[in-house]
Amino acid sequence: MSASDKTKVKRAPKRGFYDCETIYNILDNSFICQVAFVHNGYPVIIPTIYGRKKDHIYIHGATVSRMLVELEKGFPISVNVTETNGIVLARSAFHHSLNYKSVTIFGEALLVTNEDERILALKIISDQIIPNRWEEVRLPNEKEMKATKIIKIPISEASAKIRTGPPIDDKQDYDLQIWAGVIPIKTTMDIPIADPLLKDGILIPQSVNNLMKD
Amino acid sequence: MSASDKTKVKRAPKRGFYDCETIYNILDNSFICQVAFVHNGYPVIIPTIYGRKKDHIYIHGATVSRMLVELEKGFPISVNVTETNGIVLARSAFHHSLNYKSVTIFGEALLVTNEDERILALKIISDQIIPNRWEEVRLPNEKEMKATKIIKIPISEASAKIRTGPPIDDKQDYDLQIWAGVIPIKTTMDIPIADPLLKDGILIPQSVNNLMKD
Repeated sequence: MSASDKTKVKRAPKRGFYDCETIYNILDNSFICQVAFVHNGYPVIIPTIYGRKKDHIYIHGATVSRMLVELEKGFPISVNVTETNGIVLARSAFHHSLNYKSVTIFGEALLVTNEDERILALKIISDQIIPNRWEEVRLPNEKEMKATKIIKIPISEASAKIRTGPPIDDKQDYDLQIWAGVIPIKTTMDIPIADPLLKDGILIPQSVNNLMKD
Repeated sequence: MSASDKTKVKRAPKRGFYDCETIYNILDNSFICQVAFVHNGYPVIIPTIYGRKKDHIYIHGATVSRMLVELEKGFPISVNVTETNGIVLARSAFHHSLNYKSVTIFGEALLVTNEDERILALKIISDQIIPNRWEEVRLPNEKEMKATKIIKIPISEASAKIRTGPPIDDKQDYDLQIWAGVIPIKTTMDIPIADPLLKDGILIPQSVNNLMKD
């Protein structure tokens, strides 16, 4: 992974990682990213879902969406994925922190026009959120595909930033009578709620059961 | 709350909200935002913690941080806060969605220089993550305050976008033998882990106990 001036982690450089394995692991553990681009000189930021396949991610949206109309011009974009794993409580206010894993990608958005790749991209995004759901549902028809735009973003210029572990206080503060430690933050799936309009006798499918087991 | 062309929700306009109460409630339920700004023509996006007080939010960082050096020039910035509440599984791939609450703010960053407001801003950010922790810890000294920059962002141009409830499928798809519903996503605090270097006999403080009860 190349680390240019844009991607090089400047603050707390010991927290910076540039290897594919670290970056892909963080990307594969989430499904929501924040996409930023420049529109008329202003920064625009939009949260959206994504799916990773090899060395790129796909995002999608409505054909008419402001973001995607902009992005298909190949403008530079920035993508961030962040998971928060804990609140780090130090003895000093200054050394309070978060445990987190974050990836930032700089790149140019590519409009996907090949129909096979467009369908594959939608399956990849679907699998990123809930694996194998794609095999259970009514797949997109021609009208829905026309209403959908797919954007591909290469993960060529990217960096990860990770903080783990207990607080790090100033040496003299360790003598203070102040509790310090980490409050872990967990994101969990709760019991599925069936659509009130669900027909009788339809059981919770394999994809959902598998997700609950994770 | 003013809704200009920049903040007006374009996609799924029924999901757009512009009133202060809705926007503040979403902001008060999180503590991590994504800040985007333009640097040398490129969009830069950085996750950071924030605190809301009345009609503005504060963010902070190292005096030398790339983001804050840029932001103090009063450049336009965009801030997004998003919480994900559920995976919405429809009968059709096309109508899969997420339940979420999201706020986007467009504005200009103001460097805070008044020392009283700077200290207050740090307390507000601290309270946003864990109320009353500020009263338990060793407060910032002069050296730490010098190393810290505070940025204030007015919540004057902002919008919220919210999706809740079950999937909405095409009429004819309701007859399909496909499970549909919502998998709720919950973010919870786990049992606090004491710093391995914590002195004996220091109990978990009130601020942490209160947070666990929420």
